[in-house]
Amino acid sequence: MENLNAFVPGPRCEVAGTPKGPLAKLRFAVKDLIDVAGWPTGGGSPDWARAHPIPDTDAWVVARLLAAGASIIGKTETDEVSLGILGENPFTGTPLNPAAPNRVPGGSSSGSASVVAAGLCDFALGTDTGGSVRVPASFCGLYGIRPTHGRLDFSGICAQAPSSDTVGWMARDARTFARVGTVLFAEPTPTALPKTLLIATDAFAFADPGVTTALAPLVDRLTDLVGHHRETTLAPQGLSVWKDAQRTLQSSEALKTFAPWLDRFNPRLQYSVARNLALAASIGEADRTRAALMREEARARLRFLLPPGTILCLPTTPFPAPLRGQSVSELAFPRERITCLACVGGLTGSPQVNLPGATVDGAPVGLSIIGPRGSDSQLLAVAKAFG
Amino acid sequence: MENLNAFVPGPRCEVAGTPKGPLAKLRFAVKDLIDVAGWPTGGGSPDWARAHPIPDTDAWVVARLLAAGASIIGKTETDEVSLGILGENPFTGTPLNPAAPNRVPGGSSSGSASVVAAGLCDFALGTDTGGSVRVPASFCGLYGIRPTHGRLDFSGICAQAPSSDTVGWMARDARTFARVGTVLFAEPTPTALPKTLLIATDAFAFADPGVTTALAPLVDRLTDLVGHHRETTLAPQGLSVWKDAQRTLQSSEALKTFAPWLDRFNPRLQYSVARNLALAASIGEADRTRAALMREEARARLRFLLPPGTILCLPTTPFPAPLRGQSVSELAFPRERITCLACVGGLTGSPQVNLPGATVDGAPVGLSIIGPRGSDSQLLAVAKAFG
Repeated sequence: MENLNAFVPGPRCEVAGTPKGPLAKLRFAVKDLIDVAGWPTGGGSPDWARAHPIPDTDAWVVARLLAAGASIIGKTETDEVSLGILGENPFTGTPLNPAAPNRVPGGSSSGSASVVAAGLCDFALGTDTGGSVRVPASFCGLYGIRPTHGRLDFSGICAQAPSSDTVGWMARDARTFARVGTVLFAEPTPTALPKTLLIATDAFAFADPGVTTALAPLVDRLTDLVGHHRETTLAPQGLSVWKDAQRTLQSSEALKTFAPWLDRFNPRLQYSVARNLALAASIGEADRTRAALMREEARARLRFLLPPGTILCLPTTPFPAPLRGQSVSELAFPRERITCLACVGGLTGSPQVNLPGATVDGAPVGLSIIGPRGSDSQLLAVAKAFG
Repeated sequence: MENLNAFVPGPRCEVAGTPKGPLAKLRFAVKDLIDVAGWPTGGGSPDWARAHPIPDTDAWVVARLLAAGASIIGKTETDEVSLGILGENPFTGTPLNPAAPNRVPGGSSSGSASVVAAGLCDFALGTDTGGSVRVPASFCGLYGIRPTHGRLDFSGICAQAPSSDTVGWMARDARTFARVGTVLFAEPTPTALPKTLLIATDAFAFADPGVTTALAPLVDRLTDLVGHHRETTLAPQGLSVWKDAQRTLQSSEALKTFAPWLDRFNPRLQYSVARNLALAASIGEADRTRAALMREEARARLRFLLPPGTILCLPTTPFPAPLRGQSVSELAFPRERITCLACVGGLTGSPQVNLPGATVDGAPVGLSIIGPRGSDSQLLAVAKAFG
């Protein structure tokens, strides 16, 4: 299955977990932006590893999983230094989307989604700043979580935009998906479910009509599980306005993060990635302030909408995965539309889980649930009941 | 000598010229932006050749040289699609500067300069839009010519900025250098030399003091050859103002040239190259108009300064080649300073020849002569008398 283009080439990074533990016998893959002691962190770029020493310590999340008995089977490819949402990487090759082979896998945790969807391991770690776990989970038909921002220790992971960076994971089945959470969140998956489901009508209207239709049975199942449901507007200011705020903040922080590397190593990047970094330099302080205020408004909106025991659902992506090999301009607008839905997690810091189970034209598309900050395990409980 | 990093790797492009002809027995190399029938044109980029069919026709200049009896020994590396002045290419490796091995070779005709300076052939073809023959000739200690714009047919050559693009060549010795011109310009090298030499005091003052000192004996030799000499100001508006105009026009045209490729192929580029292309998109029409008017002023200035029989001299570069491996920010200002001198050729379309023979800190630096449009052969005559 090496022709997935999903594993980092060369000697395979394999590390056995401690023999006993709550995750014993589970096998997982690690996105190549996350440190595993003794293995180079390649970052999906030919010029990242030479700029960074081989780590001598596992990332916190890796250490925690190994200590719980899970074993690493390999490191997985990613969009260049996490800067992408589609998974197309001309340096490493674009990983296969096993659920829709003529389509992109989604990114930036592209290789992790690919190997899990292909059944090569039980779960895989990814990072999610602006959608990098949720989008490939939606496109490849997997459970995927972006935890509450700041809840899981990010040490030993390549940063992009610290005010939005999170580490999450993907799995094929809901029970395994939830089991990983009991270890990382260090709490059992609750048995009680939320009592109220909000349906974000603006987000459903924003998705392609076929997606809304395909997701309707999943929304019904959620409604049955939760009981009470109500329609609401998620973003009164507009999803595109929230997206602009997230883009402004994320791009500015990403440029700040990568500027020393860009300057010292003048790295090779695909044009679209380099262009976004170059254009971020012209974002002004006034724009950043405006964006930061809109972020406060988005957070306030979610606090208002989501008291304890309430969750909200929306389409994870407005359409299934785009076809592979399209031009930069063909993909420009789809990319923006994806971000209009995916921005909510990065902007508000709320936990978000992708639930698989729907397809459009034979390609997966996921339903997301968002809960109040800190409700990660409750979202996993919903996924478990749903799966 | 493959460790020059100067030849395109893989099977060597070798083509024998017609057995008899004015250039019989001369061997030359071809910058990999210039078509040789049956060989891919790689353009110094991993993503250029796949976007362009293997040419079935020689570029005009190649056909002309082969017909005159010269033989091709190989194709040479270049900055990515000609977008560079220093010769550093992370995809192909940076060619060796045989005259100063710890320094860059200059670009974008980097490989051509490298193989000629190493003595592997008699001359080599390059292209020069903003300095791409003259700068490596200066840095590697070679004769090099940027012909009058429009004088030599550019067909079969990868364009960058059509209003400045030219094809030229480099050689170690002045006689060979001039012989190539008799074929390409289809006229004998005149025996009579220009009668007046102008010394561009603003350009000499702009160069490092050590360069001006090192070039003084060359200026004296030129003065002896030509007879009458006079000091003058080349750019009353300022060399940096001329540079801005050339940068505005050249960048805008380059983006227009490469936009379809960038869009369709999203190619891999080093960050500095991609950034310049991305930022060119924000150049406005009013800036282009202003730059075009300044170009008219620069052309008017050269028409005024250079009646027939008059040539002008200036340092080709303000310093010898920078050290290899510097950061983007360390090289930013040196790059701009080089362009302040090199812009004159691209902006005015006048022919310019680099004369070698001086060194600073052991590294070559060249003296340029510029003549009126169409005086190419007269400049070659000066080089021949000088050499």
